Formats: sequence, structure tokens, C-alpha cells
Amino acid sequence: MIIIMKHGHTPEQREDVIARVKEEGLDVHLSVGEGTTIIGVIGMPILDSLKSAIESRDAVEQVFRVTKRYKLASREFHPESTVIDVDGVKIGGDEVVIMAGPCSVESEEQLMATAKAVSDGGAKVLRGGAFKPRTSPYEFRGMHEDGLKILAQARDEYGLKIITEVMTPADVELVGRYTDIFQIGARNCQNYQLLEEVGRTGKPAMLKRGMAVQYEEWLLLAEYIMAQGNPNVMLCERGVRGFETYTRNIFDLTAIPVVKHLSHLPIIADPSHGTGHWHLIPAMSLASVAAGADGLIVEVHNDPSHAMSDGAQSLKPERFNELVPQLQQIAAAVGRTLAPVEEAVAAD
Amino acid sequence: MIIIMKHGHTPEQREDVIARVKEEGLDVHLSVGEGTTIIGVIGMPILDSLKSAIESRDAVEQVFRVTKRYKLASREFHPESTVIDVDGVKIGGDEVVIMAGPCSVESEEQLMATAKAVSDGGAKVLRGGAFKPRTSPYEFRGMHEDGLKILAQARDEYGLKIITEVMTPADVELVGRYTDIFQIGARNCQNYQLLEEVGRTGKPAMLKRGMAVQYEEWLLLAEYIMAQGNPNVMLCERGVRGFETYTRNIFDLTAIPVVKHLSHLPIIADPSHGTGHWHLIPAMSLASVAAGADGLIVEVHNDPSHAMSDGAQSLKPERFNELVPQLQQIAAAVGRTLAPVEEAVAAD
Amino acid sequence: MIIIMKHGHTPEQREDVIARVKEEGLDVHLSVGEGTTIIGVIGMPILDSLKSAIESRDAVEQVFRVTKRYKLASREFHPESTVIDVDGVKIGGDEVVIMAGPCSVESEEQLMATAKAVSDGGAKVLRGGAFKPRTSPYEFRGMHEDGLKILAQARDEYGLKIITEVMTPADVELVGRYTDIFQIGARNCQNYQLLEEVGRTGKPAMLKRGMAVQYEEWLLLAEYIMAQGNPNVMLCERGVRGFETYTRNIFDLTAIPVVKHLSHLPIIADPSHGTGHWHLIPAMSLASVAAGADGLIVEVHNDPSHAMSDGAQSLKPERFNELVPQLQQIAAAVGRTLAPVEEAVAAD
Amino acid sequence: MIIIMKHGHTPEQREDVIARVKEEGLDVHLSVGEGTTIIGVIGMPILDSLKSAIESRDAVEQVFRVTKRYKLASREFHPESTVIDVDGVKIGGDEVVIMAGPCSVESEEQLMATAKAVSDGGAKVLRGGAFKPRTSPYEFRGMHEDGLKILAQARDEYGLKIITEVMTPADVELVGRYTDIFQIGARNCQNYQLLEEVGRTGKPAMLKRGMAVQYEEWLLLAEYIMAQGNPNVMLCERGVRGFETYTRNIFDLTAIPVVKHLSHLPIIADPSHGTGHWHLIPAMSLASVAAGADGLIVEVHNDPSHAMSDGAQSLKPERFNELVPQLQQIAAAVGRTLAPVEEAVAAD
Repeated sequence: MIIIMKHGHTPEQREDVIARVKEEGLDVHLSVGEGTTIIGVIGMPILDSLKSAIESRDAVEQVFRVTKRYKLASREFHPESTVIDVDGVKIGGDEVVIMAGPCSVESEEQLMATAKAVSDGGAKVLRGGAFKPRTSPYEFRGMHEDGLKILAQARDEYGLKIITEVMTPADVELVGRYTDIFQIGARNCQNYQLLEEVGRTGKPAMLKRGMAVQYEEWLLLAEYIMAQGNPNVMLCERGVRGFETYTRNIFDLTAIPVVKHLSHLPIIADPSHGTGHWHLIPAMSLASVAAGADGLIVEVHNDPSHAMSDGAQSLKPERFNELVPQLQQIAAAVGRTLAPVEEAVAAD
Repeated sequence: MIIIMKHGHTPEQREDVIARVKEEGLDVHLSVGEGTTIIGVIGMPILDSLKSAIESRDAVEQVFRVTKRYKLASREFHPESTVIDVDGVKIGGDEVVIMAGPCSVESEEQLMATAKAVSDGGAKVLRGGAFKPRTSPYEFRGMHEDGLKILAQARDEYGLKIITEVMTPADVELVGRYTDIFQIGARNCQNYQLLEEVGRTGKPAMLKRGMAVQYEEWLLLAEYIMAQGNPNVMLCERGVRGFETYTRNIFDLTAIPVVKHLSHLPIIADPSHGTGHWHLIPAMSLASVAAGADGLIVEVHNDPSHAMSDGAQSLKPERFNELVPQLQQIAAAVGRTLAPVEEAVAAD
Repeated sequence: MIIIMKHGHTPEQREDVIARVKEEGLDVHLSVGEGTTIIGVIGMPILDSLKSAIESRDAVEQVFRVTKRYKLASREFHPESTVIDVDGVKIGGDEVVIMAGPCSVESEEQLMATAKAVSDGGAKVLRGGAFKPRTSPYEFRGMHEDGLKILAQARDEYGLKIITEVMTPADVELVGRYTDIFQIGARNCQNYQLLEEVGRTGKPAMLKRGMAVQYEEWLLLAEYIMAQGNPNVMLCERGVRGFETYTRNIFDLTAIPVVKHLSHLPIIADPSHGTGHWHLIPAMSLASVAAGADGLIVEVHNDPSHAMSDGAQSLKPERFNELVPQLQQIAAAVGRTLAPVEEAVAAD
Repeated sequence: MIIIMKHGHTPEQREDVIARVKEEGLDVHLSVGEGTTIIGVIGMPILDSLKSAIESRDAVEQVFRVTKRYKLASREFHPESTVIDVDGVKIGGDEVVIMAGPCSVESEEQLMATAKAVSDGGAKVLRGGAFKPRTSPYEFRGMHEDGLKILAQARDEYGLKIITEVMTPADVELVGRYTDIFQIGARNCQNYQLLEEVGRTGKPAMLKRGMAVQYEEWLLLAEYIMAQGNPNVMLCERGVRGFETYTRNIFDLTAIPVVKHLSHLPIIADPSHGTGHWHLIPAMSLASVAAGADGLIVEVHNDPSHAMSDGAQSLKPERFNELVPQLQQIAAAVGRTLAPVEEAVAAD
């Protein structure tokens, strides 16, 4: 931590700041220049409480942090990339994994039809919400356990892994009985009790970035899960809120190389929420894989025009099927693989 | 809802859209102009699922909603302003109510000293967190029930009402035993189960705006609480996330007259989180009252330099005491009252 | 400037960075801690080019600037607040100055009627655009010199000072012949040649904040004008772009105390552009004065329903007249004055 | 345009709105529903002035525009994609064109070395600023005409086309004597006189997106150039301002498929400004081509550690050379070509 003192501060004020730092058992390194006095604070870790307490003083101009606040999620402390093994499907390795399916589980018929289609198309993981966070209390909120059961049925039938959202700590046990990967949604990414409860299960979790969450904050959220002993965390970029109204969000693809640089955790891209329009999904899926994403999560619905949520950003199965071979070519161009359609069809 | 068809759509595509709308039992009003075909959808309510489903169609250019999605929170449906009675302290009436206190309850000594100071200064409600949402898992997270007990002690001693945060549904019962007003924080404002659990208690709740939440979304969050039968919801503007780095947030004071226009619910301003710097709090407190806020919530700490959170944005008691008489003058200038210091001192 | 080296950098890489800094004639102060190596750079000024050049190196983790980049605009170098004398009207002193008038000058009749109304209401400065920046090339772009002539006529008739926008360096001489204050609009605030041309005139200038301009950048823009020898710069907060769609912009009132803290220049608030809706202007005008604004610039139109621009955010004269007495009370509450209506009427 | 009336408006208010619309020679289509009254306005074009004037009325709830405001730039009115021929280099066709070079022209030696490197690497167009917009007035602002002469020399020597920025209308003639493509920078994209002056030359122009400019506004800016008779406009996505501080901007790659959808104009991606860090440029260049960009503009400097601007976001020639073959593979994967290095070397 580096403390910049205000011009014209008194020696007493400076000593006062130094004394406050030393109360924490930390040492200082004073550098008095012409015009600028800098106090370097040595020792780890620097808590936010101390930083804010120092900033509260009249004589302090500014305080900078020079060490990262996250450790378990940091590539610096863990240089090798994490590969998460979801019961045989590896996320974070050479293969780019496709997760696909409807926004919500709406019925057995709808889910099984979509599951077959995405499995045929090359997806390894089936998405589908049984607990749905909705902007309005008057919308459909999911089939709850009945939806989870239908997901489990699709898993058995098509050999897909399941990813589904959990919204509150009390549901972690129930959802965990059915899902292979917990999804923590953008709106709940700062629901710390939920993060810790998922952390305690040890089961793979996909942590979506909140609409106004910075990279460092996002990695600290992953740290909440990991600190409970669960290293199986993957991140998911799904767009942040911005001033453009044509798209649902600003899909921040630069998050992909940034996360790869700062962290060892896998990162998944969600072009459906990132853009909000089905016609933009193919281009942004290709871009995501080119940028280095370890996986894609794409909304596919057998009948978007009757979807109970997110119809506008759902691909029809035939469009999804056209997209996968293009994704394979992009994956090859960046030295990775993506499940060949043939193999997937064979597995059906 | 108004549907704009794409140029060059076919009559079949148009009929198809109309048929989809009619499936929901809604009626349409077709207007075919030169160049623009518009389908007006008549009847209430229009769900987001239908809007999105219509948008999923190739032939549809754009869909606009023309009715509001919230009702219980809407001034249109409830023209009279709501006044919440917190055991004798009225929020939303003529008086501008001051809520003040530390970010976190840290000890009996700290809280009682601060409670005395803010009570002397004219505050009617004491704030203080016993459950603290923190960006990093390595920070202090509050004293939990011990903190709640200290808050209750301060209430007894100084005749203040209590506002404290609840972070997860499972804690609602516990927190509700001690607090007069539930605080739902910015990070948890889309934690729908929490909103509903607080809704079921019927107890006053202050709902902070999330960092990337639009006005309409905010009112829909209030609607979640109200739909459970709890009309005692006040909103709190505490800044939204923006591109400026000097301040912690962009403090969006325009939210005050906008909420007054769209809704009948009281609105509180939080200049501490809104700005992030103690030296900006006085000006922005005055501005908040001038803009029409029904109350202020201000961080005051007896020793900011040792605060365990938010020291940089906490006022010292003497600064708070200087501020209140100025607030009284602003309140008077906009035709409102604010507890006279004398009276507060007398109550001590 | 403070340079944080990456973990695991080599002594050669460190020496290399130091050598690069010394090339600029600057000295360094090395602090090698456990885990963190910090190079402090001593001496002034640190250019952005050097900062960016240092950041380009593999072994460098991060670079912080510790000195401000602006000087002429800085309160640190010029502690006393600047008061600009616009031919007798003082901006930045005890009095809060009201600037009012239509968005565009549309006709002699429109301008004279509005000028009379705002003069009667207590405004000291008349606003009105003769050169209009418009989002679409198909909109009305102002009356140009004819509009300037009408403004001059209103000045003569009502004793008002004139503020009007200049959009391009080639027009500075022409506009300067008529106006008392140059307005530099949000869209042109980074038009550096325009800033310098206005700087060379020495005439008062009001510099609006751009839609995505940070405080430091804004003060550097003022610096562009001041560096040409023109100290008569006032700033104008008019809202920044954000994610909320109900209002035209996010009106960042915290800019007022921040600018007062960092700079000695006067600051004006523009609630018309800040909010975009006439019904929000009164509350936000009051809030602006309470926050410490040195002036207000408000759109007033004698017939908003026929305005050629910004009708939706223009007050009618009667609403403006109702507002001024309230503003006077707020001004008094914060220890300032605002032209009494009586006096203004008398001057008429 | 669609006008939604407020609940409880009077028939007189409705007639008044209709009368105002008819004043403009436009016709209306009234739809009075239970609870909602909608006035559709028929006829083209609807100016913003009218929209705003209607919104100014008390009885009006909301006004929506249903027709696009740009025409010349619109794909609807011009379905075929525009291919710009820059003296033999085609932009917007099958080939993805690489533009590369330093941020600023600093010296003959620097530019010629970099020009050779990027030409060898496969670039077809050389970038380099002779007039530099800088945040601070104390930074290097370019070599002006001397810089333009060096660019012309590089063109002759390496057969590259030149792109360089023009900042003010008065310089258009001078810059136009040397450059093949005018660059209009993000800060100047709303400098309307500059747009029109460039429009009058008829010469190819690349229009960067401003930091807070929406897609529709961006296309209206292109419309300003095109309305002067210049169809040779390409757009350039270079990131928008957001809340993340790790990167310089939020690089909004979704702009690429959106622009392709709404417009027939070519679109270029600028990963250097989009990210601000050289180490993020390769991934985001690949992503840009995968998303459908018609070209890339990349900062390459022969010695970033001594660059007079943007060193931190400049690639070294060797890194650029490694990147191009990967770009070729991505281009092939999306059915496009990218100049083979061999051919470029041969041309040297």
C-alpha cells in the first residue's frame, strides 16, 4: 500500500499516519521528496478497512494498493491453468466445451426435444433453469424440483452433463442432488452466503459476472467459493450494463484474455445474454472462441416463439447446428478442439 | 405493447405474429402505413416472456411496451404518497428523517458513543451493520447477533429506531427480532427470495438501489416485497456505478424527483456511499434534501481512523453536528421540517 | 510516478526500467520489499508518454501517477476561488447567477419574448444557440449570424449578458463579436483547437463536461484554454452518459463539490440537459444550488410545444418564475445570494 | 412516431396533441383502448424537434420513434455492402485489411523502420498520427506537416496506403494532400464541421466511435459525411468508456455484427485503443476478425519503450509478425482472406 500525503501536511500528521499503520504490525518506508511525500507500507495483507481508515485522514491525498486482494484465484500464486473435470467432461483444457439449452425448463417435451437437438449438434452440457431470477414478480419463475427432475432425465437419455442455476443457500442441497455444475447468476454473484454454500459442496460452479462487477471484484467472488475448499470454479462473461440500448448488455470479450492473464480459472462466454438478440449470437460465439474462451453457453430453444423466457435471444436448433462446424474451424485456428458433430451424433 | 414489423415482411409473417398474440387471449389493432406496419396489442398484462417471444421472430423489427410493469409501487395506481410509521417516526411525511451511525457495529463502546453523538445531533434512526457484505472474503464481516444486541441496547438507551442490514432469507427472522427497519443492500437488491422473505414480515424495509439498476427495475424490486403484503417499503439512492474513479459511485440525485413522480414510496438518500469521501458528504446531503429526499442515511463514526469498514466515507460526530442545522435550513426552504437539535438533545 | 515491478522480474529488467527513467533526467528511489519492488520516480513533470512507455515493458506490473496533471486549473497552485467578471456580473462570488433562455434562437419574436420573461424572472445572463450541434444532419442547426444579432438586440433591450455556443475555431472571431461568454458544448469539449482559439481571445468561456469525461480530464480541458492566457474559465456540469434510459443523462451533482475541492474555477449546473425533462428541472435546480453551484443554466422557452430543439426539457416562463423564489431561499440557506426578483423586475 | 397519452388526460389535451402533429403536415391514427390511448403519427420524416415538442406536453406519457433517423448509411435503403477502393486496396470485400503503424509519427527513422516491419508483416495500410489529440496540453502533439511528409515517403518506399488523423476543418486540405484515408478520431466524432469538410473531399474516411456514442448516433455521424456526397465511409470500433479500470476502454466487439446488420458500411476494429495493453491485442485481434471485421487497425512501434504516445498499447514488430498468420487462419475459418505474408514480403 502506498500513501501519498497532501501538500502542506505537518510532521505531526505524517507521524500520526505512520503510527496508525504500525498499530497493525506493519512497517513503513518513508520517502520525502520535493513536493511529494510518500509512505510505503510493507507487509501483507493490507485490508480494505485499513486503506479506508487511512483515507479518512485530512492530511492524506490518496492511497494505492500494490498487492492483489485475491490469492486462490490468482495465476501468480497458481501458474498452471485449472482444468475442471465434470464427470469426464474437461473444462479449461484443449477442448472448447459447448453448453446449450433453453433459458428455462418449461416441460418435459420442450426440454427433451431441445436436449436431443443440442446433443446432436455437439453440446456436452445441457443448460436449463428450474429456478429463474426474473425482473418482475409477475413472470414465470421456473418449475423448481419438477424442472430439476426433467433435467436429470435428459442427462440419462442423452449423456449430457447438466448446468442449472441455484439462487439461494437453502436450495443448494436440492439443486446439488440433480446438477453437475451449479450456475450462479449475474444478479446473485454478490450473494456471499450462496457463494460459500456452493463452496462447501466442492461441486463445479460457474460464476457469472455481475452487471457492474470489475475484474478484480469478480475474482474476489470466485475467492469466496474457493476459500471454502472448492477449487472447481469457472467464470462466465455474460455482458455488463452500458449505455447502448440496441443490445441487452455490452458483451465484454476482453474479459477472456484478461481473466486468462490474472487467473488460472477457466472462462466461459455467454453470447446470448451478452447480446440479447439471436441474430448476433453466431458472430459473437465465433469471436468468443477466437478470444480464447474455454467454453460457450448458448440459449437454444425448440420453439423460441413460445419460450417462457428469453425467446428473443434463443437460437433455433437448426441455427445452432449450422454454427457448430464454424466454431470447430475457429477452435482449430487457435489450436484447440471442439467436439466433432459426428462423434456427438454417434453418442446419441 | 406495440410491435413494429420489418420492411418487406410478408402477409403470412404478419398473420403469424397476430396469431401468436391472440394465443394469449389478447386482441390486436393493426395499422398498415406506407413503409411501416404497426401491431398494437390490447389488454393487460403483457409479460416479458411474450415480448421476448415476439421479438424472436425474423419479421419483427422492434417491440415497445406501453404499460408499466409495476403496479403496487406505482403512483398511477396509488396517487397518495405513502408515509411509513416506524413506531412513531414517520418516513415520507413533512419531516425529513436523519438516519446516522457507523458502517459496522464494532463494539459496544464504539456503537454507544456514536449513538449518543448522532442522537444529540438530531438523528431519529441509528444505522449500523451486524451482517456486512464485503468485496473480499478476507475482510471483517460483522458481529452478527452480538452486534444486533448492541444495537438494541442503543435503542433503549437513546430512544433511536434501528436500521440494519439483512443479507440472506435465513437471517430475516433473527434480524427482525432486533431491527425496526430492514436494510436490503445494493448487492442484494436482486436477491428475490430475500425480498419476499422481508415482504412476508410486514416490517418496514429500506431497499437500496443496485449499482446497475434502472428506475423501473428498482420499482419492480419494491414490487417483490409489496406483493407479499408489505406496503412499508422505502427506496434508497446510494449511487450507481460509472466511469468516474474519483468518487466511489455516481450519486444519481435525479432519482429523487423521478421516484416521487413514478411512485408513492418514500425515498432516502445515502451520500456516504454515493460519494465515498467524507468531505463530499455535507454538500451532497444538502443537495439531497433540496431535491426532495424524505430522509438521509449518513455514516458517522466516533473514530473513522480505526473504523473496520468505510472509514474514508464516515463523518466524525462534530462534523455531523455542524451539518444538521444547515440541513434544517434547506428543509425549511423546501417547505419541510427536520428534527430540531434542541428537541433531540432534550430526548437524550 | 510509482512503478510496481512484476513478481519474478530480473535485476536486469529492473535496471533497464531505471535506466529508461533516468534518460528523462529524472531520479529514482528504489524500495525492494519481500514480494514487492517499487520504483519511485522523483521530479516533475511526468508525461503520459513516459508513463505509457514504462507500462509497455514486460516486467512492469503497474504504474501510478502521484502528481496532478493540471496546474493552472488546480486549487493547490491557486488556493483562492476565481471570480469571473462578465461586464459587471460576477460569476464565482457570493451571488448565484441564473442563465436562462431557449435552446436555440429561432426568431426575433421568440427570443425577445423569452428574454423579457427570464429577465423579469431574475436571470442575469441570456442563453440561446445560434450554432447548434445536432445528432442528426437533418435537424435545424441554428440561425448563425442572424441569431447572434438577435441575441445582441436582447442584450441591449434587457440589460442581460449573452452566452452562446461556438462550435469550430473559424467561428470564434464572429461569435466573439456578439457574445459575452463563449459556450463550449459537451460534444466539442475535446476539440482542442477550439479550446485554444477561445483561450486566445481572453473572453469568459463556459466549458461543458463531455458525456464520458472524468473530472481530471475536464480540468485538463480547462487547462488547454488557460494555457493560452485566458483565466476566465467556468465549468458546467450537464450530465454524463449512463445506463438509465428514463433521463437523458445522469446528472452528476457531486461534480460540484469535487470541482470546488480540486479547482478554483467557478462551476455552473445545467439541470435541463442533466435530466432531459422539464418536470425534473425544479428539484434538480434546487439541489444544484444546495450543492454549491455558482450558477444555473436553464432552458426556458416561451412556447416549448413549438421549440425547434429541446422542447421537452424547456421550462415555460411561468414555471421559471415560480422556481426563482425557491432558489433564493436555498441560496440563503447555504449563505449565498441570488438576484431578487423585485430588483430584476425593476431593472426591466 | 407513436405517442402514448397519460392516463386521465382530457379530450382537449388529446386534440391539442393531434393538432400540433397536423401542423407539420403529418397525419395521425388514433387508437383509444381501455386505459391506454395511442396516437400513431404517419408520414416521414419525423424530426427530433417535433418529438421533443410533443414530449413537452403535460398530457403525454411517452413518445417512441419507429423509423430510423439515418438513410444513406442504412442497409435497409442500400442492401448491398459497400466496398471502398483505396487506390487498389479494397475495404469491405472478401479480404480483411490490416492497418498498422505507430500511434504518432516521431521521426523519419522511427516511421520508416516501423513501416518496413508492418509491410513485411502483411499490412496494406500504414497508420501514424501527425496531428495528435492529447488529454493534456503538456504532451507531444505531433510533427504536423513534417510528419505527413514522412508518411508520404513511407508510402512511396513500401507501397503502403496511408491513414492519418485530421482534427479540425482548417487542416482537411493539408492532410488530404498526403493521406489516402482520413481518420476522424473518437474525440472529434461529433465535430460536425469536420465531418462535413471531410465529406466534401470525397476521399475515404474512417470514423471512429466516440467514447459514449450509441450505434444509431454513430450511423448519424456517418450520415453527416455521406450527406456531403462522400459514400466512402468506414466505421471503426475502438472501445467505449465503462466502469472497468483494468482496460483503457470496453472494447465492444458486438458493434461489428450490429453495424453489419444496420448498415452497408465497412467496419474496422482497433484492439489497441479497445484494450490499452499490448498483451491483450493478439486475442482481441483474432476475436475481431472472427466477429466479422473488415479490417484491423493496430498500433505497432519499433521501440515502444521510447514511444512518444501509447507505448503501452503498441506491439513490437516481431509480435505483430507472429500474429498475422493466426489472423489468416481465422479469416479462412470465416470464409475470408487476409494478405499472405509471402506476397507482402515479395512486394517489399
